[in-house]
Formats: sequence, structure tokens, C-alpha cells
Amino acid sequence: MGALDEGRFHAVLANGVKLECPLQPQGIEGQPETLAIQDAVKVLLQGLGEDINREGIKKTPFRVAKALREGTKGYKQKVKDIVEGALFPEAGLDAAVGHAGGVGGLVVVRDLDLFSYCESCLLPFQFKCHVGYIPSGQRVVGLSKLSRVADVFAKRLQDPQRLANEVCSALHHWIKPTGVAVVLQCRHICFPSLESFLVDSNRQGWSKVLVRSGSGVFEDDRGDHWGDFLSLLKFRGINTDNTEDSIASWCPSQSCSSLKLSSINGQLNSGMVTAVDSIIRSLGEDPLREELVGTPIRFVKWLMNFQNTSLEMKLNGFVYGRGVDSLKANGELVVNHKPERLLIEVNLSFWSQCEHHLLPFYGVVHIGYFGFNPIPKALLQSIVHFYGFKLQVQERLTRQIAETVSSLVGGDVIIVIEAGHTCMISRGIEKFGSSTATIAVLGRFSADPGARAKFLQSLPNSSTAFAAS
Amino acid sequence: MGALDEGRFHAVLANGVKLECPLQPQGIEGQPETLAIQDAVKVLLQGLGEDINREGIKKTPFRVAKALREGTKGYKQKVKDIVEGALFPEAGLDAAVGHAGGVGGLVVVRDLDLFSYCESCLLPFQFKCHVGYIPSGQRVVGLSKLSRVADVFAKRLQDPQRLANEVCSALHHWIKPTGVAVVLQCRHICFPSLESFLVDSNRQGWSKVLVRSGSGVFEDDRGDHWGDFLSLLKFRGINTDNTEDSIASWCPSQSCSSLKLSSINGQLNSGMVTAVDSIIRSLGEDPLREELVGTPIRFVKWLMNFQNTSLEMKLNGFVYGRGVDSLKANGELVVNHKPERLLIEVNLSFWSQCEHHLLPFYGVVHIGYFGFNPIPKALLQSIVHFYGFKLQVQERLTRQIAETVSSLVGGDVIIVIEAGHTCMISRGIEKFGSSTATIAVLGRFSADPGARAKFLQSLPNSSTAFAAS
Repeated sequence: MGALDEGRFHAVLANGVKLECPLQPQGIEGQPETLAIQDAVKVLLQGLGEDINREGIKKTPFRVAKALREGTKGYKQKVKDIVEGALFPEAGLDAAVGHAGGVGGLVVVRDLDLFSYCESCLLPFQFKCHVGYIPSGQRVVGLSKLSRVADVFAKRLQDPQRLANEVCSALHHWIKPTGVAVVLQCRHICFPSLESFLVDSNRQGWSKVLVRSGSGVFEDDRGDHWGDFLSLLKFRGINTDNTEDSIASWCPSQSCSSLKLSSINGQLNSGMVTAVDSIIRSLGEDPLREELVGTPIRFVKWLMNFQNTSLEMKLNGFVYGRGVDSLKANGELVVNHKPERLLIEVNLSFWSQCEHHLLPFYGVVHIGYFGFNPIPKALLQSIVHFYGFKLQVQERLTRQIAETVSSLVGGDVIIVIEAGHTCMISRGIEKFGSSTATIAVLGRFSADPGARAKFLQSLPNSSTAFAAS
Repeated sequence: MGALDEGRFHAVLANGVKLECPLQPQGIEGQPETLAIQDAVKVLLQGLGEDINREGIKKTPFRVAKALREGTKGYKQKVKDIVEGALFPEAGLDAAVGHAGGVGGLVVVRDLDLFSYCESCLLPFQFKCHVGYIPSGQRVVGLSKLSRVADVFAKRLQDPQRLANEVCSALHHWIKPTGVAVVLQCRHICFPSLESFLVDSNRQGWSKVLVRSGSGVFEDDRGDHWGDFLSLLKFRGINTDNTEDSIASWCPSQSCSSLKLSSINGQLNSGMVTAVDSIIRSLGEDPLREELVGTPIRFVKWLMNFQNTSLEMKLNGFVYGRGVDSLKANGELVVNHKPERLLIEVNLSFWSQCEHHLLPFYGVVHIGYFGFNPIPKALLQSIVHFYGFKLQVQERLTRQIAETVSSLVGGDVIIVIEAGHTCMISRGIEKFGSSTATIAVLGRFSADPGARAKFLQSLPNSSTAFAAS
């Protein structure tokens, strides 16, 4: 019979084959922690006004529970298991001759793409990890272990500086080198509310911090060893002098100061806050840990931006005149001689929430239509935000914007949405560079490839606009 | 009691919790296929003249077996299991109005980083996968499934065009859309032999091909739908007009034509060839499949470049004169008034084979030393190749080059090696953008941070030189 031990299943089959497999992620279905998270996610979905039996979201509680448990599996992993068996004897030099190989030869691995969960708001953040260490005692560690050890601490609820410190100190403890240096370039998704977005639609972006941690000869962060290490980062275009955002404003949810938390709490659905508290506990964390105390309120506050609403969209009384002819104030008829033309509005930013994983997706909307007069950009941006701030899928968002614009301009509309999906960089998939595009084509754009091509050719190159990495 | 079924372990514990976990990679230890691959790798290592009990390589047979079985697990995966449960109802539009959402709204996911194994030479190759599909029947598929399905076919012994076709046709079959388009940008490591490298040391590089596959409305690869799809790739800087290498010369091992195979075979260790044959069979493939017939010979031929040799390195009779003074041919004494200075040789290409995983690593070596006269570049390049063409680790390679150059110049040497490791992009780690740097510092470079800094600052930026992605 098999045995369960610290999240792993062990058994010896009749033929003597030894089985050992992690219970995560395949084994988590039905575990009490998973079920507790699923229940909590149902409370959150109901708090958003969603029908939890709706086809698109009925498995969302399980998907969220699976992603969260997989994304925090580092609590159950042991660095010892990773490093042991991957320390290799490697000759060095006599200190009088110099430093090389297994004695003093600096080893640097750069640009490891990883993600972690922000302890302040429970959203995933991504980071590039750069690790250096100086071997000692004539032994070196397998290069991939530097990444695997970093991942053990990434797969927890984290803060960038603590993450760097924990990676550094674990590597130091298990490799026993002369020193370890860790640099993390972290990127947190911005955190606008619908309210702030309507005020300033350019708020989309990233909060970035660069953190360092050093042990042994790297404890002095102005020492020569840091100079060598940072030089080797620079060759790869990694500039550590960058003025990144300060760590204090790292997580945008922190703009809810703790003083304000209690008053906000009163306005929030307390069942939802309790549900997030239960999620944190189910992940094996202590919700009373200082850094986590305000997390449920911050998470719920952010989530409520995506509340389902049955309000009709307000078009601010705007009626778009396609009219070829129009009347002046004095009643004189003005014949509009301008031909109908292709009008284009590009790079309208949007922000939305994937209904399958309760994770953000974000990017830009490009709109083309035939008409005489351009629709005001502010109106198009409002339409984009209205459909964005919901539990969504990109395909539906594209169709809804297209239909709404179509109702204004009489049917000839093309929409392209370019997006990055947090659910593609986190979970088990971790496709850091991927991006998604969707199109809707209405009226003559549907029938006329030439019109589509003309619009598509006029769009800006988005290769750096919102890349996930 | 648990049951084994197609590479998965199923059990119901006493508390009713259902367990299901893949046997790969954790469960493969001790399986007959794994043991057979381990035995075959031992034959290969012995054929290279290695002591299979040497500390650095004694676990190499297991590491190679684990990597190969994990890297070919796609043979046991079912697309149905991935796509089922991830098809979501999504409204579209009436065809008279246009195309959007679940009926006709093109969805494109770009820049999925994946790797596969080349069936021609058994080395991993990496590729960027771009997938588009046009939903039909009011349903869409979860975005991550496009990546997961591509990975099922990537994790097999493959050829780029077949890979594209299989991904395309599997997505078409299970999603039942109006059409699927797949573009793969594949990159295969070049394949020089020590011999060709000594003739032309600039041979390092990549063999690149771009392949497409289309189904349904994408079957006509000059149709309008391809135009839309390619436009959306272009926004991300993906240029499909690139003149990439032809598919015929895709795998550099193919330069061994089949006509030559039998004559080469005679020169190779037949035990090694049989061992590779056994590996292919253990992965679940048929070694008699047409494309695989020459693979064992090609693999062994390539591997033999890294044969252990006890020959002393030939320095071509070169004796490096550090001498301040020297004699002209006519016996006249020339007093050299030039001061000793920092001499630098950068970007000496190297090629090596990771002894832990039997996978290539490659990159550039930068050398600095104090002297009056520069060492000829060809000599430094020979030293680099001599230590490169072996089973190696980067830390040792760095030390060995440093020691050899030191013996020529009298002790003041600094070496930096910048490398990409195939074992960091394949296996379970898949860190596509990562790179490794190592340093050795001898003599005054060891004691004087200023001398190190002067050298390091003079090195070229390598951010595009050999990036793994």
C-alpha cells in the first residue's frame, strides 16, 4: 500500500518497481485544501454577481485552486533534495596562482524566467533571476540547480527582497561556496481600478523593482566581487543601474494603506474577505503573518473592479452622426462632400480578468471603421473599458466591442485586440514571451480582404508594447 | 492497490482520495526502458574512452535516460485529454453581419517557446510556435491548450514540417474549427566536427527553418486568411518572408548522405551504433522508420568528436617569446621599448559537450593577458578547441584554457567564457533565454580588481551573440 508523505506518494509495486510521485498538481483533486479553495472561489464568484453554474466559469473554482496550489508548491519542496547529488568535484587552483574552476572561479547564470505570487495582492508577478556564486572546496553545482532552487522560493507567496534573500541563503547553505550573489528584476502588473482608468487611461503599465542579495564575499555590496558579477550581467544588456521603482511602491495594491484598510473593509463583502483568508490558510500560510494581514481586503478590493453589472453602458448621451448631409444651427443644409473613409483608432488600452483563471489580461485594442467623422477617442476608450472590466475571455471582449462600435457607425467595423495573459506566464504553462491576438470583422471588412489588409497594415508594431517578458 | 496504465499510476487511498500521477519523470527510475537507455549510454561513454565510474559522469547514464524519456513523453499523451473540458461555448455573429468570437473570429497565439528532438541526430532543437484558428460552432478553446497540444507533438523525435502538420491536424480534429494555421520557426544547433572547426572557426551558428501548416480555410496557403494571420505575426516582429535555410539542409548531420553512411559505419564502433538503436527502440520508436535509419550512425559520428584523448596538445611548435629583447635574423639585438601591456583576444568560438547530459554547450571565449607581443589568434583558437572538444563542464574548460595560456605568458591571465547550454533549454527546465558565464583569474588579475575591471569593460556586449532564444 502506498504512503503519503509531505505531498508525495510512495509505493513499491509487486514487480519491485519503486514509485514516487508528487501529489501536485495531478494528485490535488479532492484533497481538503483544494476543496476549501474551490469553495472560497465560489464565494468570490458569487460576490462578483456571477452564476457559478455558467458554462465558462463552472470549472473556474477548480482551475484557480489547481493553479494556486501548483504555484505555491515550494512550501513543500526541499532544497536539499535538489542540490544533493548535483555537487560535482571540480579542481581549482592554488590560491597563489589564481582563482578558477572549483576554487574561486565565479559562475554566473543569467536570465532565468520565473514567476512568483505577490503576498500583498495574490497576483502572480514575473521576474528575471540572475545568480552568481564562487565555488569553494573543489566542487561545483549543476547549473540547472540554480534555477530549480530559485523556483522553490518563487513558488510561495513572496515579496521581491525576501525572495532574493531566501534564494541566496539556501544556495549558500547547501553549496557552501565562498559567496552567492542574486539579482532579481521583478515586474508586477499595474493595478488600476475602473475608476482611475476612466480618469487616466494611460495608467497601464508595470511596476518594476530590482533587488539584490549577497552572502559570503558578496555580503559587501560595494566589493570587487559584485563588480565582476555586475560586469557579466551588463554583457547581456542587464543594466543594474536602472532607476527602477522603489520597493515601497512595488505592489500597486499597497496604495491602500493599512490605515484605510478597516474603512474599506466595511464596504466590502465580508464573506469574500473571509474566503480569501481561507485560501491563504489552505496554501499553508498564516493569514496573521504581518505582510498578509491586509491581503484578503486588497485582493477583494481589486477583484470587485470586475463585478458583473447589468447597467446599460452609458454612451454619455453621445449620438454619432454618420450623416452625409447635416444642418447648420441656422437651418442651412450643409452637403458633406468628403468621401466616406477608413477611420482608425489604435492603442486603446484595456484591462480585463480571465474568467477561467481569475487572472488579469491586458493590452491594446485597435479599431477601424468606415465613416465621415471620427468617433471621439474618449468614447471608444469608454466602450473598451466597459467591456474590459468584467470576467471575460478575449474572444468575447473582441466581439462585444465590435458590436457596440458597429451600432454607432452602421456596420463596417474591424477590431484587433493584442493581449498578454497572466494565465499564460503562471501556472504550469509558463510561456513568458507569448501574446494573443483576436480579430472581429463586420460588414464590408468581413467580405473585403483588401479593406482588412489596409487596416492591418496601418497598425503599429506591438513587439515591445505589452510583451509578457 | 494502485494500477499502472499508459504511464500513469492510479489508486484510491483508504480515505477515498483518488490519486493519479504520471510516472514520468519521477516514476521512470527502474523501468525496463529507462534501464535499457542507461545501459546504452554506458556503451557510448566507454566508446568515447571515458571511465564510467568517474564522479562527474557516473550518473550521466541516468540523467540522459531521464531527459530522453521526459523529452519524448508525447508518445504517451493524448490530445483528447488536453482539449476535452477546455472547449467553451462562446457566441458568434450571424454570417450576414460578420465574423467574431465563437464563429469566425480569428484567434492567434504567438511566440510559444518549445523544444523537440531532431529525429535525424537525436539532439534537441528549439522553436517558436505561432498558432491561429478560426472558431466555429460557437465554441472556443482555452488559449493554453494551443501550447499544450503543440507540446504533445514536440515531445517526440521530430522533423519541423511533420511537427507542424501534426499540431495542425490534431487541433483541427479536436477543436473542429473553420481552420487552423501553424507557423514554426525552428533553430537547430550547428554540427561542426573538430576537423571542420580547425579549418574554419566561424562555422558556429544555427540552422534555421520556417515551416507552415494549414487546415480547413487555411489549406490554401495563398488565401486571405493566411494574410490576416501573417499580419498578426508581423506586429510582433515575426517576419515570415525571411529567407531561412532550406528544409533539406535543416539538420547538419544530413550532410552525411545515406550513400556515405555504410562506409562511415565501417569506421565507427558498432557497439555504439547498436546502443543508439536500442535507445530509439526504448523511446517507443521504430528504428526502421525511414527517417530514423541513419540516425544511430549520425549520432555516433557526431559524438565521436568529443572522444577522450590522451594526446598532448600540439602547439604547432610555437614557442611564445615574452622576451623584452630579441634577435633579428642577422643576429642584431633588438631592444623592445614597448611596455608590457594588457592584450585581449575576444570572441574565440568554442563548442563543447556537457558531460552531465551529453548535450552541446557553445559560445565564446575572451582572453586577456599581460605581455609585449600578442599570441597569434590561431594558436589561442586551437587551445580553445582542444579543450572544448571533449566531455566537459564549463567551469573546467575555463580553468584549463587559463592554465594553458598562463604557461605561455608567464602567469597573468584572465578568461571569460560566455555560453548557452542545450541542457538548460531542454529537459524539464526549459529556460530558453538563459546563459552562463564563468571566469578564471590568474596572477595579477587575481589580486588586482582594477586589472580585471579594465579587461571586463573592454569585452563586447554579447546579448545577441549566442542567445539560446
